[in-house]
Amino acid sequence: MTARPATVEEVGRHVGASVELRGWLYNRRKAGKLQFLIIRDGTGFLQAVASEADLPPEVFELCRSLGQESSILARGVVRADPRSPGGYELSLTGLEALQAAEEYPISLKEHGADFLLDHRHLWLRTPRQHAIIRVRAEVIAACRDFLDGQGFLLVDTPILTPAACEGTTTLFETGYFDTTAYLAQSGQLYNEAAAMAFGRVYCFGPTFRAEKSRTRRHLMEFWMVEPEAAYLDFEGNLTLQEAMIVHIVERVLAKRRAELERLERDTAPLEGVRPPFPRVSYDEALRLLEPVEPLAWGEDFGAPHEVAVAGHFDRPVFVHRFPAKVKAFYMKPDPERPDVVLGADLLAPEGYGEIIGGGERLADHETLRRRIREHGLPEEAFRWYLDLRRYGSVPHSGFGLGIERVVAWLCGLEHIREAIPFPRLLNRIYP
Amino acid sequence: MTARPATVEEVGRHVGASVELRGWLYNRRKAGKLQFLIIRDGTGFLQAVASEADLPPEVFELCRSLGQESSILARGVVRADPRSPGGYELSLTGLEALQAAEEYPISLKEHGADFLLDHRHLWLRTPRQHAIIRVRAEVIAACRDFLDGQGFLLVDTPILTPAACEGTTTLFETGYFDTTAYLAQSGQLYNEAAAMAFGRVYCFGPTFRAEKSRTRRHLMEFWMVEPEAAYLDFEGNLTLQEAMIVHIVERVLAKRRAELERLERDTAPLEGVRPPFPRVSYDEALRLLEPVEPLAWGEDFGAPHEVAVAGHFDRPVFVHRFPAKVKAFYMKPDPERPDVVLGADLLAPEGYGEIIGGGERLADHETLRRRIREHGLPEEAFRWYLDLRRYGSVPHSGFGLGIERVVAWLCGLEHIREAIPFPRLLNRIYP
Repeated sequence: MTARPATVEEVGRHVGASVELRGWLYNRRKAGKLQFLIIRDGTGFLQAVASEADLPPEVFELCRSLGQESSILARGVVRADPRSPGGYELSLTGLEALQAAEEYPISLKEHGADFLLDHRHLWLRTPRQHAIIRVRAEVIAACRDFLDGQGFLLVDTPILTPAACEGTTTLFETGYFDTTAYLAQSGQLYNEAAAMAFGRVYCFGPTFRAEKSRTRRHLMEFWMVEPEAAYLDFEGNLTLQEAMIVHIVERVLAKRRAELERLERDTAPLEGVRPPFPRVSYDEALRLLEPVEPLAWGEDFGAPHEVAVAGHFDRPVFVHRFPAKVKAFYMKPDPERPDVVLGADLLAPEGYGEIIGGGERLADHETLRRRIREHGLPEEAFRWYLDLRRYGSVPHSGFGLGIERVVAWLCGLEHIREAIPFPRLLNRIYP
Repeated sequence: MTARPATVEEVGRHVGASVELRGWLYNRRKAGKLQFLIIRDGTGFLQAVASEADLPPEVFELCRSLGQESSILARGVVRADPRSPGGYELSLTGLEALQAAEEYPISLKEHGADFLLDHRHLWLRTPRQHAIIRVRAEVIAACRDFLDGQGFLLVDTPILTPAACEGTTTLFETGYFDTTAYLAQSGQLYNEAAAMAFGRVYCFGPTFRAEKSRTRRHLMEFWMVEPEAAYLDFEGNLTLQEAMIVHIVERVLAKRRAELERLERDTAPLEGVRPPFPRVSYDEALRLLEPVEPLAWGEDFGAPHEVAVAGHFDRPVFVHRFPAKVKAFYMKPDPERPDVVLGADLLAPEGYGEIIGGGERLADHETLRRRIREHGLPEEAFRWYLDLRRYGSVPHSGFGLGIERVVAWLCGLEHIREAIPFPRLLNRIYP
């Protein structure tokens, strides 16, 4: 019987047949004259049974002695076995080691966070990290498919920019030939130019904030998807966000349920993420906070305030109409009450805090110019941005969704560092 | 008759009905008592006919006087008209200006490149730039769909990195708290770690090269898709590239033919992009170059050499087995001839040069370590990368496809600066 190449993911199609898996030895346990090898090949994990009675002595010896994470070609017959995690196992008929690994640093016992982060390149090989990164890829695909389906065009915005969008204290700076460039914290300003050209657009890329904060929910480098639409008002923007979040959650539940199970994520709270999401004004939120985390009017939310407000609801909640002075210069003041802006943050339930920030943008040229001055920003650098209000200004809105925040929430992670393949944290840039 | 909101893209569904377009005035021409307005709304361009006889005087006056790029709500009845570019036009019944633009800087005459680049935020509104950016979005979607369909998992690699992949002279550098970070020129090394964890992976993001070159095909910031696969050899890697390019070209021809027409792109050469692609070794390429652009063995190709070699073929051509000394340290030497590596560049026809670089990677720990030393790279920074050869090393290959290069080729652009929404060129970072 010749062995055909197969992957763990599709092994169920080969029951009774002889296959060859190309992968790595993930784990092994012994039971009398049997060795149980857990083989991983990137698509999944499969148990292979090596029987001393059926194998040549040198092959069985290899099964017994080969180090964790050695690369292997494993041949055997696929058996359906309801007791196995994936429903199948392999009766081993042959094993070949490509490279025998010795003293693999990540054993199957517990390791500290720093040790695991130092070995992120190897830590990614574990079933838990597999599950998270697959959910991440699904979230990203869901964002793209949702926006493409709604007529949004991908228009990439630049990373190297001449000016800061939201202040300069948290910017990474680099020389750019004879001048200085900053790494983008957001693609939004460019998105607005693109929306005036294409109507509905989105950018999707890495963004950077040099914040000296060591929290469970901050990364120095993180991915953000930012839709922006001309002729979209504040209310329409909230409805769009609601539909997008529901789409993402439903898709992950439909396609990545096995991964959520592996992460021991209770999916009940996710099943309840249905529109409409509750909407509370900043003023109403202050009243909710009064007994637990009191906040003076005009102060911005911190993590404890987000968690306390979101704790009142069983699904994501919009907090809208923040004081103008704590929000970015480009937000449109509420015409009925100009001390607050037509912006909203979407807070995830279960303590995960802000996952989206967005709102309607200032469309009036003179007001925008005044705000730029009031914020002490260099008007010259925003000349092109002001042009958007001189040549066919229209009402427009948009938002930014932080991918890692959403992944952490959906996966039920304690720390955002697991939500990205190679996290960049305060003082951590290796590997 | 109430006007329903419609977009130019879907206007054909509303023939005979009264619709409202929300957009901008792109152009106007006069013919007796008629005004022909070209309206754009981001999804397309549509001609609206304003008749003095049918409109209230103040509305006709608005049609006559409103400045280019003013934002407008245009109401009218949709008519099928085979003489119109899109097959439809609008008989105007009402027009409202949201913001009247004056002295729009980009008139419909010719402008110089510097002027247009200074006004990139407005230049994007023209039909030509629309067509290019739509082709770009299609190319990106084609890459993702192809790789997703082939079992590749999106695993994002970091932009902020502690070490350089291909030398430090062309790196953007930034402070990272108490240390220094470099902007990634490629995600490849991290991709290799991801491939050892997930089997088949890709990253897709912006990359950065601080090259002091002012050419038609260099950007300081460009997007690259980089697939990497464990257990994939050199030949398999070429086949994968071929299939991916064919997929991209076929999809753009199928879905963006109108855009290619607008760009006056002769599609005949693209229709001929079918497998197999010709493959010539570096040594064979030198013989082809001898009469026109002679090159000494051991020298790397420049643009003229790429163009001259590609000129011999009617479809993309692989040039393989370059001298080891001109290629990156991680390339696998040909076992039959260690002075050349198992790498290949894919050169586009019609003078567009390299669109892909890739190859099989060095899998042997000791050889890799020696190459790192020979290239004068800091071994400590590559510790994690060397780990991949200590713990389950396998044959693996991958490549990087430059998005803007492919867009420039497919669109037939003279300069790569039009292939990205906001180009970053030597000494240009505005807007």
